[in-house]
Amino acid sequence: MAAEATYRRPEIRKDATHNRWVIFSQARALRPSNFKSKSDANPKSNNQSECPFCVGHEHECAPEIFRVPADSTSDWKIRVIQNLYPALNRELNFPSCPSDSSHCSGDVAVSGFGFHDVVIESPVHPVHLADLSPAQVGDVLLAYKTRIDQLRTFDSIKYVQVFKNHGASAGASMSHSHSQIMALPVVPSAVSARIESMKEFFEQTGKCSLCQVGRDDLLIDESTHFLSIVPYAATFPFEIWIIPRYHSTHFHELDSDKAVDLGGLLKLMLVKMSLQLNNPPFNFMIHTAPLQVNPSQVPSTHWFLQIVPQLSGVGGFEMGTGCYINPVFPEDAAKVLREVLIE
Amino acid sequence: MAAEATYRRPEIRKDATHNRWVIFSQARALRPSNFKSKSDANPKSNNQSECPFCVGHEHECAPEIFRVPADSTSDWKIRVIQNLYPALNRELNFPSCPSDSSHCSGDVAVSGFGFHDVVIESPVHPVHLADLSPAQVGDVLLAYKTRIDQLRTFDSIKYVQVFKNHGASAGASMSHSHSQIMALPVVPSAVSARIESMKEFFEQTGKCSLCQVGRDDLLIDESTHFLSIVPYAATFPFEIWIIPRYHSTHFHELDSDKAVDLGGLLKLMLVKMSLQLNNPPFNFMIHTAPLQVNPSQVPSTHWFLQIVPQLSGVGGFEMGTGCYINPVFPEDAAKVLREVLIE
Ligand SMILES: Nc1ncnc2c1ncn2[C@@H]1O[C@H](COP(=O)(O)OP(=O)(O)O[C@H]2O[C@H](CO)[C@@H](O)[C@H](O)[C@H]2O)[C@@H](O)[C@H]1O
Ligand SMILES: Nc1ncnc2c1ncn2[C@@H]1O[C@H](COP(=O)(O)OP(=O)(O)O[C@H]2O[C@H](CO)[C@@H](O)[C@H](O)[C@H]2O)[C@@H](O)[C@H]1O
Repeated sequence: MAAEATYRRPEIRKDATHNRWVIFSQARALRPSNFKSKSDANPKSNNQSECPFCVGHEHECAPEIFRVPADSTSDWKIRVIQNLYPALNRELNFPSCPSDSSHCSGDVAVSGFGFHDVVIESPVHPVHLADLSPAQVGDVLLAYKTRIDQLRTFDSIKYVQVFKNHGASAGASMSHSHSQIMALPVVPSAVSARIESMKEFFEQTGKCSLCQVGRDDLLIDESTHFLSIVPYAATFPFEIWIIPRYHSTHFHELDSDKAVDLGGLLKLMLVKMSLQLNNPPFNFMIHTAPLQVNPSQVPSTHWFLQIVPQLSGVGGFEMGTGCYINPVFPEDAAKVLREVLIE
Repeated sequence: MAAEATYRRPEIRKDATHNRWVIFSQARALRPSNFKSKSDANPKSNNQSECPFCVGHEHECAPEIFRVPADSTSDWKIRVIQNLYPALNRELNFPSCPSDSSHCSGDVAVSGFGFHDVVIESPVHPVHLADLSPAQVGDVLLAYKTRIDQLRTFDSIKYVQVFKNHGASAGASMSHSHSQIMALPVVPSAVSARIESMKEFFEQTGKCSLCQVGRDDLLIDESTHFLSIVPYAATFPFEIWIIPRYHSTHFHELDSDKAVDLGGLLKLMLVKMSLQLNNPPFNFMIHTAPLQVNPSQVPSTHWFLQIVPQLSGVGGFEMGTGCYINPVFPEDAAKVLREVLIE
């Protein structure tokens, strides 16, 4: 971390997109730990011959929804399949209230209707998303879009969350490169809060908070249609946001050209992160608008992709307050990621 | 987990206290993992002779704020000290805005003024909180109260978070039994959201949401002044809330009698959790009201203590949506914790 001379004083910043405080404190990076073993962030995975996501093992998977290319029999590049252990059930009727709890108690429940899918990003085990070409990463992004276009035909589906877990400490239970898509019958409160917060910003400034990101010291890279930055009040060290440079409310507005462009920038960020941070486990999440968006929210709502390397755990403070402590100032993180040399 | 025959359908419940959806899905408990090693949840700690929190090592610690009993020289039971690597700085002036960012950009920052203290719960290394007597646990709770009473004399302190990390996977960097107290110059958004959500419940029902918890199937235990339950929409498997049976807005209203009573119930919950869940790492958090509370919020705001065993990680879905997936239905968790036999 920074030498004593360049030591910054702690600062509490507000993230305008989420309306959330984050504490920046370099001192926190100096803590020693008296626990002997640090868990191996990314333990070796089992023999790939046991992997149901590998080509040739399709019969060990839950049913396929579609594959890319669509007409291929064995030489698929991407498969979108049902999750074998789904959090939500695609066969339940909706709406219905399975809870026998008395409503005067305030106990509210809806049945767990919804879709939980897996996107297998490559047919072969050792190939990770960052190893694919920009066009191939673009194809994965277009597979998300195609699936969202199917899911949004269901009236009762309110929000679709696309996310990726890479590495055991990022929550992954499978090591074969994949991501997940969950379609929910409710709008999660963090999503409503974000939409609300962006709307407030718009009302105060007349501008969309994400069309707005213009600080050079936070910029990492840019492509024709996208920017990558470390956000001003990044929740996690070396967190990255990839933001469309054009105003766009929903991720599923993405077209093929923009998908390749985004694929290239996403790949670049994953490669840079891997080089600078020693191949960390990571998550990425696509933050888009609820499917049925109020027209008044369109000017202020802008989708983006958030990448979070898993470098440190959290504790009771974050669980209690929702306020995170980040030991790396965003300007410093952006510099580190901007200045990587890729051969 | 439950046998096929008693398999419950997934359900999405709303937590009235936090206004947050939680997905309950038993299927999720069945996922296999193809990552070889699971991190050891609670690795052995180093030799205690190196521990600065042990009696005799006081000089290796940041300055002491007070000890219990107050007049003891060497045979202290509890010490409240400054954190050597504080997230916030007690010497900064407040308010001040250290950020040179232009305000039209929406970048808002305040200086990192605040207090970050450590409570050493026992002078000797191997003694954990659950090993203390109810009265001794009560003394730890009263030490929190005493420190909060000091901190709330600062006008610029808006919220005090008390929390405990136990075990490396719960975030702890020190194994000697301790908790932490952070005093913040802002009210974290999760706290404002909770206060707002409880107020909404009150406006709709005329009742405080936590004076209200009356479902027998969620009850674990009760003492003279407190209840312990698994909340109806528990975010995490086997999460426990200890709630005062009397209406109380701030934790620091606790008196000595109630502290012993709470100490006993907290100890019981930690012992039960340890027996039934194989001594898991855990966090606890005291959820209280902001220091300056609006009189209109007093009838709806009720403090409680939340205990969360760390049994599973989270992934991109939870990070993206703030909506958690819990594989254990609260009624089942409460039964498991209710029925432990303590010899
Ligand atoms: N043969 C098969 N056919 C089809 N699908 C199969 C399959 N075998 C396994 N699967 C599914 O493949 C998925 C792989 O997903 P990940 O590795 O990204 O994380 P997982 O969902 O297990 O949990 C992580 O992400 C979730 C969501 O963020 C968190 O709740 C959780 O704590 C974290 O560990 C699993 O959901 C699993 O159910
Ligand atoms: N000699 C000494 N004198 C005084 N204090 C000393 C000291 N040596 C160490 N300390 C302090 O003791 C504290 C011990 O705290 P914990 O073990 O509960 O977790 P920690 O704060 O490290 O981080 C966990 O909790 C925080 C808050 O939830 C998360 O941000 C983080 O990710 C997670 O690992 C540390 O904060 C450390 O700075």
